[in-house]
Amino acid sequence: MARNYVQQIQDLPIGFQSSLDEILVGSSRTRSSNSLVTDSAAGATAFSCRIKTYNAAIAVADDKSPCGTVLEAAKLQRGMATGLVATSRITHATPAAFSAHVSHRDMEDLIAEYQIGNYSLGPVVDLMFGGGRCHFMPNTQANVSCRMDARDLWSEARAAGFHTLSTRKQFDDLESRSSAKKLPILGAFAPSHMAYEIDRDSASQPSLAEMADKALHILNSATKKKSAGFFLMIEGSRIDMAAHTNDPAAHLRDIVAYWDAVTVARKFVDEHPDTVLISVSDHETGGFSVAKQLTPEYPEYLWNPRALEHVRHSIEYISYKLLSPLAGDDQEARYKFVRDTVFADWLGIKDAKHEEIITAAQETDSTKLRQLLSTAISNRAQIGWATHGHSAVDVNLYAYGKDAHLLRGNHENTDIGKFIVNVLGLDLDSVSSKIKADRIAQGTQAVKETPFGSQDLDAPEHHLAAAH
Amino acid sequence: MARNYVQQIQDLPIGFQSSLDEILVGSSRTRSSNSLVTDSAAGATAFSCRIKTYNAAIAVADDKSPCGTVLEAAKLQRGMATGLVATSRITHATPAAFSAHVSHRDMEDLIAEYQIGNYSLGPVVDLMFGGGRCHFMPNTQANVSCRMDARDLWSEARAAGFHTLSTRKQFDDLESRSSAKKLPILGAFAPSHMAYEIDRDSASQPSLAEMADKALHILNSATKKKSAGFFLMIEGSRIDMAAHTNDPAAHLRDIVAYWDAVTVARKFVDEHPDTVLISVSDHETGGFSVAKQLTPEYPEYLWNPRALEHVRHSIEYISYKLLSPLAGDDQEARYKFVRDTVFADWLGIKDAKHEEIITAAQETDSTKLRQLLSTAISNRAQIGWATHGHSAVDVNLYAYGKDAHLLRGNHENTDIGKFIVNVLGLDLDSVSSKIKADRIAQGTQAVKETPFGSQDLDAPEHHLAAAH
Ligand SMILES: [Zn+2]
Ligand SMILES: [Zn+2]
Repeated sequence: MARNYVQQIQDLPIGFQSSLDEILVGSSRTRSSNSLVTDSAAGATAFSCRIKTYNAAIAVADDKSPCGTVLEAAKLQRGMATGLVATSRITHATPAAFSAHVSHRDMEDLIAEYQIGNYSLGPVVDLMFGGGRCHFMPNTQANVSCRMDARDLWSEARAAGFHTLSTRKQFDDLESRSSAKKLPILGAFAPSHMAYEIDRDSASQPSLAEMADKALHILNSATKKKSAGFFLMIEGSRIDMAAHTNDPAAHLRDIVAYWDAVTVARKFVDEHPDTVLISVSDHETGGFSVAKQLTPEYPEYLWNPRALEHVRHSIEYISYKLLSPLAGDDQEARYKFVRDTVFADWLGIKDAKHEEIITAAQETDSTKLRQLLSTAISNRAQIGWATHGHSAVDVNLYAYGKDAHLLRGNHENTDIGKFIVNVLGLDLDSVSSKIKADRIAQGTQAVKETPFGSQDLDAPEHHLAAAH
Repeated sequence: MARNYVQQIQDLPIGFQSSLDEILVGSSRTRSSNSLVTDSAAGATAFSCRIKTYNAAIAVADDKSPCGTVLEAAKLQRGMATGLVATSRITHATPAAFSAHVSHRDMEDLIAEYQIGNYSLGPVVDLMFGGGRCHFMPNTQANVSCRMDARDLWSEARAAGFHTLSTRKQFDDLESRSSAKKLPILGAFAPSHMAYEIDRDSASQPSLAEMADKALHILNSATKKKSAGFFLMIEGSRIDMAAHTNDPAAHLRDIVAYWDAVTVARKFVDEHPDTVLISVSDHETGGFSVAKQLTPEYPEYLWNPRALEHVRHSIEYISYKLLSPLAGDDQEARYKFVRDTVFADWLGIKDAKHEEIITAAQETDSTKLRQLLSTAISNRAQIGWATHGHSAVDVNLYAYGKDAHLLRGNHENTDIGKFIVNVLGLDLDSVSSKIKADRIAQGTQAVKETPFGSQDLDAPEHHLAAAH
């Protein structure tokens, strides 16, 4: 879908290959231990601990015992520098499964404690760039916290030696060579998730590619002298989230932003040929199809990339704006706002039907409003969705650099964890032994629903995020 | 989907790999010259002529000039034996694109003429196994013909030296070694398409694997002395058709039947290591998802293979039976027939709702009835569909044997044609020159709608097949 779009909109040759197309080596099978359809927690634990576990498990096995991760072992056994880059909250399932051990992904307050080293292993993550500052802030600071308690992990992190960052300026000021001395670094550039690429204000948040580039060079500088190397996990986290909302335009822009991060990482590999790059999804989201039949008659064979060209904001952003009091309660003004701003300016839909406009203007339920906006864009693009959840289909596996050929073919997702263990020469079981006494909270932690300001438009997702 | 099903129903280890999983090498990009979503004619022409052409084109370029195919060149330039095996009509788009040159796929009467050698090159296909006898029979034989004219191509084929077969017994009687002397062979085991695997009566029609096995060994025997080798195209044609009907159970069984054919072909390659096997789809069909959300609430992460386990017939078969007068017009008897035979026995659905039964019993429109049956199965399996047509997604590419590694990675479908040209050392342009004067019928041939008997349950598809 993204390749078709970029090729057509930029008028490139049909043979155009993305930075991923060029390094395809096979596919990954994604099922978890308790379902044919995985969630991101079990999916990431397959990579980090090379085991199948139950949906929602963060680096714990089926029996909830903690499993040592490749990140922890790389740090402890090889002296490697380690990093996590994500556009979600850094406490979200994927980065969490490399750096914490909890029985349920929703326990993000506890995950934050692990990430700053409050467990047997002490601090093992040298660098974190992402969103999710709210799980480090005490609940006494209502507008920036989503913690259930009053612990100030942000200050605790600083006390433990972390260099903390929360602004674009602080990010820009990090110079690669000298910053290596500042490790560990905790950079959280949004209270909750970072913005979708389509909504991102580049003056306030770095892109995924910028974070990836800086992380690669800081970690590389940090270990240059002792030649230990580094382990870095980079996630284009919101590709999945856009698909949960069935938002094809936000999905597309986050995919292309991810390609840019892959380009940055491939350049690093070219300059450091003893490096291996792996790119893989933990699962498919949305039951996505690059075709959608609109009428009962036999369908024409086409889809329409142009319908995504002039979309300016995510459905999440738009529905937030539409449901906020600011959008105006005067019916006529509201109708015009929906027609001229929402449909024409933000969705690039100039031919919205009266029925579409009036329904969107009157809808007060957030889920229904998003569905309605999704249908408006998806039907015009002829993009299909089967679910707001995940699906069981295999995902593409890409690899580049040293030993990449070993990943050719069709693999269980756990093979990717095994590959990392093998190429780095790690012993995960000995890490598991060290952490087996650590506190694994049982059951599901209550999640605080904090309505963030307009800078955190993803906030409505927060309390729905359990299964993502 | 098929792997999840087989693994779960047969209680195999999670790591179970199909005959295809083991030989995955990359992916194929499927767009045609005039659409992001290809049809099978343009898709097959990419393989046969290594060019992008317009949807519906059978081995002709955008300007409708004929393009020499790898099958023709293999025969003429390398003295190879050649074959086509399909479960569709042998005159259908995919086999046609290797053996005929017409401006529109619907011109199957003319395609049949090409296939028996009525053009500049004379007969180039040594062996054909499949369905589609009707396009070889004169329209004077109403029940077995779908030709517009009274030509008897079946007799013409025999006069031209073809050994013709139309029954399972004749197929079984073909012994590999002695049969090599009988080439060319035209075996058409059904008037139209052969049965879906789920409906197939093994006493009357061979399986795809049986046809593949016999074709491989006959063609191999035929060229053993001169070591010229052979080119064989084998299509599991009805995988696509089941997806057009959004019929997950028929789709599944035809996929597994295709795996069996791949197993047969891989065994041949193991015994003849100078052979290369390529397996690829021309496109995805149905906008298929291995997940379907059934309610507005956030979906559980699962799909249900068990719902496909007890399905006994294709939706095409069932809708044909339901719409035939034989099913009875007495309302109560009809209700019981739908409940006990259609839902319980044929679909394996014991919990059909009164509403489902009564709607199916009363529906007289074939398209609506199929949709209703598709929904009944697909919802219980939680399988999603976005269209009755094709989609633009990349498809998996598999290869095994000599030079298979050259196909690793992400490719345009035309690269697969180029690979065949290169490994066989062919010159397609010189073939194109030889056939450029051949009659390429312009425009769309009228297609005769012949209602076949119950042996040809796919007949309702026939006049809708234009875009498949
Ligand atoms: Zn998700
Ligand atoms: Zn088709």
